[in-house]
Amino acid sequence: MTDIERLIAIEELRQLKARYFRCMDTKDWDGFAAVFAPDATADYTPPGGDKKVWSAAGAGNIVALVKQAVAPAITVHHGHMPEIEVTSTTQAKGIWSMEDLIWWPEGARHKTMHGMGHYHETYEKLAGRWLIKSLLLTRLRVEQE
Amino acid sequence: MTDIERLIAIEELRQLKARYFRCMDTKDWDGFAAVFAPDATADYTPPGGDKKVWSAAGAGNIVALVKQAVAPAITVHHGHMPEIEVTSTTQAKGIWSMEDLIWWPEGARHKTMHGMGHYHETYEKLAGRWLIKSLLLTRLRVEQE
Amino acid sequence: MTDIERLIAIEELRQLKARYFRCMDTKDWDGFAAVFAPDATADYTPPGGDKKVWSAAGAGNIVALVKQAVAPAITVHHGHMPEIEVTSTTQAKGIWSMEDLIWWPEGARHKTMHGMGHYHETYEKLAGRWLIKSLLLTRLRVEQE
Repeated sequence: MTDIERLIAIEELRQLKARYFRCMDTKDWDGFAAVFAPDATADYTPPGGDKKVWSAAGAGNIVALVKQAVAPAITVHHGHMPEIEVTSTTQAKGIWSMEDLIWWPEGARHKTMHGMGHYHETYEKLAGRWLIKSLLLTRLRVEQE
Repeated sequence: MTDIERLIAIEELRQLKARYFRCMDTKDWDGFAAVFAPDATADYTPPGGDKKVWSAAGAGNIVALVKQAVAPAITVHHGHMPEIEVTSTTQAKGIWSMEDLIWWPEGARHKTMHGMGHYHETYEKLAGRWLIKSLLLTRLRVEQE
Repeated sequence: MTDIERLIAIEELRQLKARYFRCMDTKDWDGFAAVFAPDATADYTPPGGDKKVWSAAGAGNIVALVKQAVAPAITVHHGHMPEIEVTSTTQAKGIWSMEDLIWWPEGARHKTMHGMGHYHETYEKLAGRWLIKSLLLTRLRVEQE
């Protein structure tokens, strides 16, 4: 890859992750589904949580998992300070710092959640478009009310 | 445009929006005025707010509106995860995720405000410099005390 | 420098600062030390604080200062909206917006801290790697409990 190809890939990956956040928070589930590779995996397991409950394989299952978790809530997800490494013309990996704020509807188990941590991700370019191939969320801190 | 010209434009637009935030929060009103095109428009209308009160046309009027709203307050505005599309050598558009925190002085109508949402913007390059041409702020959540 | 060299430098500086934040928050002190030039200086003096206590010269002393301040705490540091100017092939400067959240362990002088402000930094490229040469943190707001 040339330097310019690498910089373009990094910018495309930044905008891919931007769509991940924006589509989740605006509940644009078609747009959200479109950021994942068909065989993507995601692991959102919180500290002490059950991995079977909080992880999924396949774009459709990931969307179903996230939708079930946050569809009725107001959510705000922010990503920061990406460290993206493009390892080939079709492969890349990245770490993102993150913060999320969730307000659950009345009657839910919790009122609010405030989480902070890092996304550890890999990406794949399929048919000319970068997609999230795997996602692992680790937390520095989770506050719930 | 070449790929490199497009990447340079995206970086210049990121730094333009960085000056927007930094100049607002440090109350550098000359610097803040310099990020807008002369005929720029801005719409900050909050949910349920009066668009006549919360929008302005013309760089001078936008600065006057923002100054009136936040000059006496401590403000912290952060922008995240830009999705910038450069549509020609002099035109671009972008979406930014945002969060703002405001602490009003004693005696004001509110004590604090915490807002989260998205900027939807267009940009124009005039005399070699990218400027904000239009700005629309939508909110996911606003908390006030 | 060519345009492409300048864009690569900006991306490397973004990833340098990303490591600064991630290594501090994950307590990777070797990784944290590796972001500073040997003769780097850092000034974290808060409003009303003693500059002798809150500043350090030399990478080892900076790491010792930060480690002493936050090693026992859970910390979350985010940087936003960089304005990076590459002034030569080996020199650069930058301003970053920042927010930090600290949770101290039981029995500490404070329970939590929430700070917002700006990093004002210079960078130097040594032996092919960009490093932080000087760092000054200014605050817009600090909240402590």
